[in-house]
Amino acid sequence: MNMPTRFDLPESELPRTWYNINADLPTPLLPPLHPATLEPVTPEFLSVLSPLKILEQDMSAHAEIEIPDPVRDIYKLWRPTPLLRAHRLERALETPAHIYYKYEGVSPVGSHKPNTAVAQAFYLKDEGGKAFATETGAGQWGSALAMACNFFDLGCEVYMVRVSFDQKPFRRFVMESYGGSVHASPSNRTAAGRSLLTEDSNHPGSLGIAISEAVEVAATSNGAMKYSPGSFLPHVLLHQTVIGEEAIKQMDMAGEYPDIVIGCAGGGSNFGGIAFPFVRENLRHGKRTRIIAAEPSACPTLTRGTYTWDFADGTGMAPVIKMHTLGHTFVPPGIHAGGLRYHGMAPQVSALLESDLIEAVSVDQVDCFESGVLFGRTEGILPAPESNHAVRATINEALACKASGEAKVILFNLSGHGNFDMAAYGRYAAGELERFEYPQEAVAEAMTHLPKVTFGS
Amino acid sequence: MNMPTRFDLPESELPRTWYNINADLPTPLLPPLHPATLEPVTPEFLSVLSPLKILEQDMSAHAEIEIPDPVRDIYKLWRPTPLLRAHRLERALETPAHIYYKYEGVSPVGSHKPNTAVAQAFYLKDEGGKAFATETGAGQWGSALAMACNFFDLGCEVYMVRVSFDQKPFRRFVMESYGGSVHASPSNRTAAGRSLLTEDSNHPGSLGIAISEAVEVAATSNGAMKYSPGSFLPHVLLHQTVIGEEAIKQMDMAGEYPDIVIGCAGGGSNFGGIAFPFVRENLRHGKRTRIIAAEPSACPTLTRGTYTWDFADGTGMAPVIKMHTLGHTFVPPGIHAGGLRYHGMAPQVSALLESDLIEAVSVDQVDCFESGVLFGRTEGILPAPESNHAVRATINEALACKASGEAKVILFNLSGHGNFDMAAYGRYAAGELERFEYPQEAVAEAMTHLPKVTFGS
Repeated sequence: MNMPTRFDLPESELPRTWYNINADLPTPLLPPLHPATLEPVTPEFLSVLSPLKILEQDMSAHAEIEIPDPVRDIYKLWRPTPLLRAHRLERALETPAHIYYKYEGVSPVGSHKPNTAVAQAFYLKDEGGKAFATETGAGQWGSALAMACNFFDLGCEVYMVRVSFDQKPFRRFVMESYGGSVHASPSNRTAAGRSLLTEDSNHPGSLGIAISEAVEVAATSNGAMKYSPGSFLPHVLLHQTVIGEEAIKQMDMAGEYPDIVIGCAGGGSNFGGIAFPFVRENLRHGKRTRIIAAEPSACPTLTRGTYTWDFADGTGMAPVIKMHTLGHTFVPPGIHAGGLRYHGMAPQVSALLESDLIEAVSVDQVDCFESGVLFGRTEGILPAPESNHAVRATINEALACKASGEAKVILFNLSGHGNFDMAAYGRYAAGELERFEYPQEAVAEAMTHLPKVTFGS
Repeated sequence: MNMPTRFDLPESELPRTWYNINADLPTPLLPPLHPATLEPVTPEFLSVLSPLKILEQDMSAHAEIEIPDPVRDIYKLWRPTPLLRAHRLERALETPAHIYYKYEGVSPVGSHKPNTAVAQAFYLKDEGGKAFATETGAGQWGSALAMACNFFDLGCEVYMVRVSFDQKPFRRFVMESYGGSVHASPSNRTAAGRSLLTEDSNHPGSLGIAISEAVEVAATSNGAMKYSPGSFLPHVLLHQTVIGEEAIKQMDMAGEYPDIVIGCAGGGSNFGGIAFPFVRENLRHGKRTRIIAAEPSACPTLTRGTYTWDFADGTGMAPVIKMHTLGHTFVPPGIHAGGLRYHGMAPQVSALLESDLIEAVSVDQVDCFESGVLFGRTEGILPAPESNHAVRATINEALACKASGEAKVILFNLSGHGNFDMAAYGRYAAGELERFEYPQEAVAEAMTHLPKVTFGS
């Protein structure tokens, strides 16, 4: 057919700045509240956990923030990432839509996560820090941070949910190969962990518990260690905007501009990464792109959650944030897109939805795997289960174009490959994957446990 | 540092031809011999198993063979692949050498294998064929062929060594997601398989047995199915030369030309892919690049094998080939680089070594994993165990440069990533990997079972 497929940027076109959407939010973000006092946290409180430069970025209102050269040098190991037109998927769907995907799975750990891990590690090193503590579920974020810390000769202590630690050792071996130290959580290294192990020596752990352990380790380290988050916070989304900035240049190479931009959303970082620069183009340059967050029907934070104050973690130890939430005690069903099993949503993404600057849709995991297999059979790549949510939402829009006869231009973020998730594909093929209704009663129960915030009222 | 790292070709620079080294071999390849008669096989014998166009390519003496447009269109899903300068590895080694790597792990299945799988599937479809049968060990080749057959709407029947089928299901799920049908070998679908299962219903299988089953299925299918090889044969190496052709252009972008080119060698296809175009430059354009095949010390076909006639498979059912061999009954030790556990070597690679146009070195798997971890810690990517042999040989050359003070330019082929091989990295980290001496007695015994060829004498 000889129609252009790839739109690869040379390394000279690697962006020099990240885009900070704080500059363009209709109203400024509300401050995080202290989990005990429910009053705005002090910088001193936060600086125990975070490098100062990162706290500055969370608060900054500058639209453009320079990417440090040492970070760009490491980005070059896999960036600029490819943007391709999905000709074969279009033909399979018989859609007049033009479908493009930005592929973040070419990073050494197979996802977008290193975009922020490398930046966070740089700033910690720059301020004389020695090590990060963090949590990880199946290991996607932990492997990104372990790689990044290794590049800057920093320690990396990862608290990995015990059931994954035991059952899914492969990403643990990745983290350890990069020099990370990985501990099954709950562990006997923290008060939180010891307390749970006393109750149940075989406690399977959870992401919320692992966060609590990593935060405790950092907070009690006398400055030897800081805490690194993998999603949710403004600086994490800031660092991910390199995705959207590249995509804008690549769509220009393709001679098109997207009518629709789609990303999957759990904590919000890969969605923010592709979406925010296009939000800017809408706000500043009169573009009218629809921007859609795709989330799991089992954990529909944006489509069914409430925009209110809630704890960022599952146990009430982390700051309280104004965001869309299903209640911090809500335990999402065990879908295979572990990265999307989060009760809340990044405050910037929540604010954009509240201002009708973005949209959200929810999709079921069985439909997502069906779409992932179709993507693999047409475009080759079998996506990560999280990314399959974006694939499904894209296919739905492309089929709507088929029905209406419109040749819309759709761009989505393929945030990672599924190499470490093939067990889930096996279960899908065997017909063993569950469909999940919206867990209405569990959410209603969880929403009775919100913190009683009076700030700002 | 701001030194160029990436040398990415635009898709317009994707090669239009493969390079056929038959045109430049000092003496023509000797024909394959029939396994029973030990006389040259007839085209009729081979055409039962192979598409005609592929048989033509095996015999062709044309230097340039056009890559069909439908094959190039699929190549564009991941090609041109990146070529990077390994600045961080150079600094870690404190070597004056300039190290470059060509990275084939960006293909959807994570290795160079699809370069030939897609071509073979195209030719089969073009001749009206319906399906391929093949063998696979852990699944690297099988997943490439399953993807390629799916693209051309062909069936794909994969005989997978039973011990891998049972213990390593993840690549099986990849194959099945692409629509391949995967059978544990030995199976009850063939006379060869049934015979072995009668002896031992829990027979663990071997690559040689899986080859025998796939060949039997194709040979007895009355034309419904052909057999597809993943390495070794001339057309397989031909299709892989797209690697080296791209690399020549990319080294030109970097403003350098390699003094040394390195690839790992099992059956010979990724080595041939990177090496043959540089052999041509040596022969035709007065270049003096040293070209080195890196093989495992546990299966040192080129460095310790004999250049003679032997069966291409392990059981004496496949044609007899003039090549370097350790004896077709030799069972290599269980190293983790399963793709390099082969008693023979591609006849073109063997002929080049015999003519002193290339060199060979052997390296131990423990040293290879040590080098793979160093590569991951400096460049990010944790390589496939096979590729680690090339990494090790490269590091050895770079350290020789450090000793001599020479700033040589070294290029190696990073044939795939290790995402599906992390169990082996875990064993390496735990100190559980074995070193293997050259298995001298086993080879000596195997060499007593060579076929008694009189042809050409």
